[in-house]
Amino acid sequence: MPTRRQLANALRVLAIDAINNAQSGHPGAPLGMADMAESLWRHGLKHNPADPSWIDRDRFVLSNGHASMLLYGLLHLTGYDVSIDDIKAFRQLGSKTPGHPEFGVTPGVEISTGPLGQGLSSAVGMALAERMLASTFNRPGFPLIDHFTYCFCGDGCLMEGVTNEACSLAGTWGLGRLIVYYDANGISIDGNVDGWFTDDVCRRFKSYGWQVLGPIDGHDAKALDRALKEAQSDLARPTLIYCKTHIGFGAPEEDSAKCHGSPLSPESIAKAKAAYEWEYAPFEIPKDFYQAWDARELGKRQEETWKKLYAAYAESYPDLFHEFERRTNALLPEDWDHLVQSLIVKSMEDKESLATRKSSQKCLSFLTGQLPELIGGSADLTGSVGTKTPSSVLLSKDSFSGNYISYGVREFGMACIMNGMAQHGGFIPYAGTFLSFSDQARNALRLSALMGTHVIYVFTHDSIFVGEDGPTHQPVEQLPGLRLIPGLTVYRPCDSVEMAVSWKLAIERKEPSCLVLSRQTLPFYSRDAVMFSSMEKGGYILRDCEGTPELILLATGSEVELALEAYTALTDQGRRIRLVSLFSCELFDEQDEAWKEEVLPKSVRARVAIEAAKSDYMWKYVGLDGSVIGMDSFGLSAKAKDCAAHFGFTVDHVLEEAKRLLS
Amino acid sequence: MPTRRQLANALRVLAIDAINNAQSGHPGAPLGMADMAESLWRHGLKHNPADPSWIDRDRFVLSNGHASMLLYGLLHLTGYDVSIDDIKAFRQLGSKTPGHPEFGVTPGVEISTGPLGQGLSSAVGMALAERMLASTFNRPGFPLIDHFTYCFCGDGCLMEGVTNEACSLAGTWGLGRLIVYYDANGISIDGNVDGWFTDDVCRRFKSYGWQVLGPIDGHDAKALDRALKEAQSDLARPTLIYCKTHIGFGAPEEDSAKCHGSPLSPESIAKAKAAYEWEYAPFEIPKDFYQAWDARELGKRQEETWKKLYAAYAESYPDLFHEFERRTNALLPEDWDHLVQSLIVKSMEDKESLATRKSSQKCLSFLTGQLPELIGGSADLTGSVGTKTPSSVLLSKDSFSGNYISYGVREFGMACIMNGMAQHGGFIPYAGTFLSFSDQARNALRLSALMGTHVIYVFTHDSIFVGEDGPTHQPVEQLPGLRLIPGLTVYRPCDSVEMAVSWKLAIERKEPSCLVLSRQTLPFYSRDAVMFSSMEKGGYILRDCEGTPELILLATGSEVELALEAYTALTDQGRRIRLVSLFSCELFDEQDEAWKEEVLPKSVRARVAIEAAKSDYMWKYVGLDGSVIGMDSFGLSAKAKDCAAHFGFTVDHVLEEAKRLLS
Repeated sequence: MPTRRQLANALRVLAIDAINNAQSGHPGAPLGMADMAESLWRHGLKHNPADPSWIDRDRFVLSNGHASMLLYGLLHLTGYDVSIDDIKAFRQLGSKTPGHPEFGVTPGVEISTGPLGQGLSSAVGMALAERMLASTFNRPGFPLIDHFTYCFCGDGCLMEGVTNEACSLAGTWGLGRLIVYYDANGISIDGNVDGWFTDDVCRRFKSYGWQVLGPIDGHDAKALDRALKEAQSDLARPTLIYCKTHIGFGAPEEDSAKCHGSPLSPESIAKAKAAYEWEYAPFEIPKDFYQAWDARELGKRQEETWKKLYAAYAESYPDLFHEFERRTNALLPEDWDHLVQSLIVKSMEDKESLATRKSSQKCLSFLTGQLPELIGGSADLTGSVGTKTPSSVLLSKDSFSGNYISYGVREFGMACIMNGMAQHGGFIPYAGTFLSFSDQARNALRLSALMGTHVIYVFTHDSIFVGEDGPTHQPVEQLPGLRLIPGLTVYRPCDSVEMAVSWKLAIERKEPSCLVLSRQTLPFYSRDAVMFSSMEKGGYILRDCEGTPELILLATGSEVELALEAYTALTDQGRRIRLVSLFSCELFDEQDEAWKEEVLPKSVRARVAIEAAKSDYMWKYVGLDGSVIGMDSFGLSAKAKDCAAHFGFTVDHVLEEAKRLLS
Repeated sequence: MPTRRQLANALRVLAIDAINNAQSGHPGAPLGMADMAESLWRHGLKHNPADPSWIDRDRFVLSNGHASMLLYGLLHLTGYDVSIDDIKAFRQLGSKTPGHPEFGVTPGVEISTGPLGQGLSSAVGMALAERMLASTFNRPGFPLIDHFTYCFCGDGCLMEGVTNEACSLAGTWGLGRLIVYYDANGISIDGNVDGWFTDDVCRRFKSYGWQVLGPIDGHDAKALDRALKEAQSDLARPTLIYCKTHIGFGAPEEDSAKCHGSPLSPESIAKAKAAYEWEYAPFEIPKDFYQAWDARELGKRQEETWKKLYAAYAESYPDLFHEFERRTNALLPEDWDHLVQSLIVKSMEDKESLATRKSSQKCLSFLTGQLPELIGGSADLTGSVGTKTPSSVLLSKDSFSGNYISYGVREFGMACIMNGMAQHGGFIPYAGTFLSFSDQARNALRLSALMGTHVIYVFTHDSIFVGEDGPTHQPVEQLPGLRLIPGLTVYRPCDSVEMAVSWKLAIERKEPSCLVLSRQTLPFYSRDAVMFSSMEKGGYILRDCEGTPELILLATGSEVELALEAYTALTDQGRRIRLVSLFSCELFDEQDEAWKEEVLPKSVRARVAIEAAKSDYMWKYVGLDGSVIGMDSFGLSAKAKDCAAHFGFTVDHVLEEAKRLLS
């Protein structure tokens, strides 16, 4: 049987060979972290390679995602559906082994990582989800959910501020089943970190209330095992295991940034393999290595034990069992269609004039009462963004059965934690902040979109109509900017009915969504059956004329009110006008050409779009012959009505533009 | 003479009255921080209200910008050009006293704040700029630059991760002239922070290498004075003064979130004023209060002393004096036009095929040799982004004469620090990271744009053509997303000549700019005199036909190469084709209608835009009859050429679209 160092070396040579084969990749980190990985994956991790979706598996997050070959090596050796040919196809078109770990591409990859710090921050969300699910479903003698979340991270992750946000919360929440290995190799791309990263990391993590172990030798298997045991035994605090390591361990470029991001040279490869006393051909792993790494038998037994427990649970707690099945399979309640229809119908019957942040809160009051998987929260703007409802119970260190999280002023950390919770399974996180501050979370929203994670962002105070708080708090570019993120669907409802439809779609479509909501009160619009049935197409005719329109007014959200005033004035003048509510551009763009032609006939070129956001985006719908009434500068601090007049969001201005296009 | 508490109360009542008058604003923080402000502004701050641009003034940053009325009160009382009528106009259209502090609107406001954490992070940049300018210009007996940077911040600022990034660097650099007052009132908008902010803040800041003083009573003038003295006496470490305070001090809502963000009720106002024993009418400040607060005489004397020093310096060091004048007045060298012209001409003569990240580096090699105010850096990607040159000297704790900063993996902190350095004066910061990670810094870029701060962001690896690193590292939405930020100019040059022009404009225009650069090699394009002279218009004709074109190809950056191949093929087929390089959409949009018509005649509707970025933005230029070859999904991990084929960036695809439009 190979020694533990030799087993770790198998990971090293796989990384070296795959990166060499691709002539692209990051060898330094996999070589540095191989011993940490051997200790954890062979002496701690609970997982079943044959079933990467087993709900009670331990979660493993590689926060320094550039070390992807370490993870692929682990998945290959322990018996996941990652073959040696997959390893050979590292970083090639269509392969299972992309440059950075990507959720949905490789079995066993829990989350997409690469942008530093976010993996660790999302691991906090996973560890939180574990405790929350346990709190809801575990019963005496039935520890249905009882697993750890492990994370590897490097210096870069700890330099990124987002880990400060998330790790602070992990300490506050006392997430004892979160165990983070800090790969302290002292090297980042620019060189030795002494010049730019001198934090006393142990002291810093203690300031968050963490257990800190080490520094230990990150290449000492026994020290690693001991630290792991100690970490696992403190269930009241998250643990940071400070591992002193050597980047590029065994290569001539060891301890230098040179081995970080480029393949090793043939000479270096030869020297490294000599140092490892590795005498096999590229991509050749001897059978006894595979045997020693193989986690399938143990994993199968572990899952089988759990399944027995689960079967007994099903007998003892049939209702909980069904609910657990539903939740962990991301199914909506059986009567969902009926429930959500009643919500929409009620919004039509109530005919209320409400700020969409308020009508959103009304929807949530209903939905959180029906869907316990909805986990709300806010980045310290709960009262303003309307994310709390009568069903909301504040989550705390002492009560993981809560369904509402005060994230503090931490937009980025919040979004990462939401991603982690959703990736864990069992929850649909939603949370809010001001639309302006979506900027801070933007790269996490991007990862939501890239992974197709089911999270719902509630962004209120959506325009200059925020008023007096001024330009730092008045979004201008954020609304079109969010629409640019592929795979993220943005809704900007004009009233309480579109609001209810937005919530329906945000939940049903099981994809990341942004709800972009007004601070100010908006009117209610009556709708006939045709309008009602076409709302889900994202863009539809809200008011029309006889025959082909001479001019089309397009608007979203709060500007539908202004558009309707202009529509009425122009119609009164005998003009044939159509008013289109475009409350989700992405949904509208998804429709077939017939629908698009029905709503926006190609022949009608006189089009005015009105949206209190940066104007560039809307040209797509109005073309070279149209006009956009939008923002081309930042806002300013003034009463909302003064902002409207100052920036041209007036009926007169719309009429002027309409007249120009109609002449 | 009023007591110090009474003097602080004058700030409190001004805040109460102004917020009440506006019926909008945040009373809690000004009431809580008034004693801190009285101590600092009356017993420490070096400033001259008559000359807010005096270069050696202490800088004051209100990081918790919602406390704006505290700052306006201070400016008014100490004698800045902020009248009582300005105070009465708080938060009204066109006033000097907007909802949050805005640079350029109010004399004495050093930087726009409001998004929490960024003020403190930029204060780090100011304190760094002070040391760097001192290091360059001070001479024995001539401490020309010798001032402190003070910052007030609250719990929210410390929850935001960006302060972790910037404060970590402040510790590494030992910025002893940075003194931060932490307004620890234990309350944020969601309530008592115990549920979401349990950091041991003292320990955390010690982990960054800071001096930490307190906790002290933030309402005890003498304790505050003592702490200030102690802070000022440690010039080797930045200081955090931990001030325990009461939000809404004196109001019935004291110590509760209720007083954070809404005006006090008339009853509460009455009670607060009774508690302050304040018996004057709204907005009435007795003369003896004004006298006690007036900083004009002392400030005048202080600046006069400095001016004498400066005059003597001018005699002793005439060259340094002239350079100091130039730098601190943000003037370019006298021979700038000649210098930059030579750079552009050389780029034309060299005819090099280079990645724009490489041609950018060549430009920088020249420019950093000429402009010592250029302060480079990177978020730990120096080698990749080409920001370091032979003139670059690494800045460190021991050497502030460096002109290059390794910011570590801290994009957001980097951008905030750049804003702070530029706002301080004397420097033009530029720094780089991958375009994908511009997301992390996005709200700081927004503040650069809002303030018109002269900073230059170098964003490389600008498209899916990054290749193997995959979608987390391949920007898609970032390029159009940056163009949406008002006041930020984005350049995406297609070759080394446009690159040189981009650098020229980024420096000359004294506004925030983003250079969006390729990882991969790009060809060189020959240009005639007309093209050469029109480049600065942002969009121009790079290749043309006889007469009116049948079809226009528009492209930016690396896609110009593909557009040219298509142009050539179509031209060979006898088609009349125009190729437009649109290397700065914002600059092009700034041009008069005549130029736009010349480049993109309204009558030519067959237009194909090619850009390897989210397609939405480009529709603005091609209209309903045109076509955009862009990205509508994330990229993938594969060789760049495989990505090109997969996503349709091929000549065949362009020709197909052209044929469709021409048929």
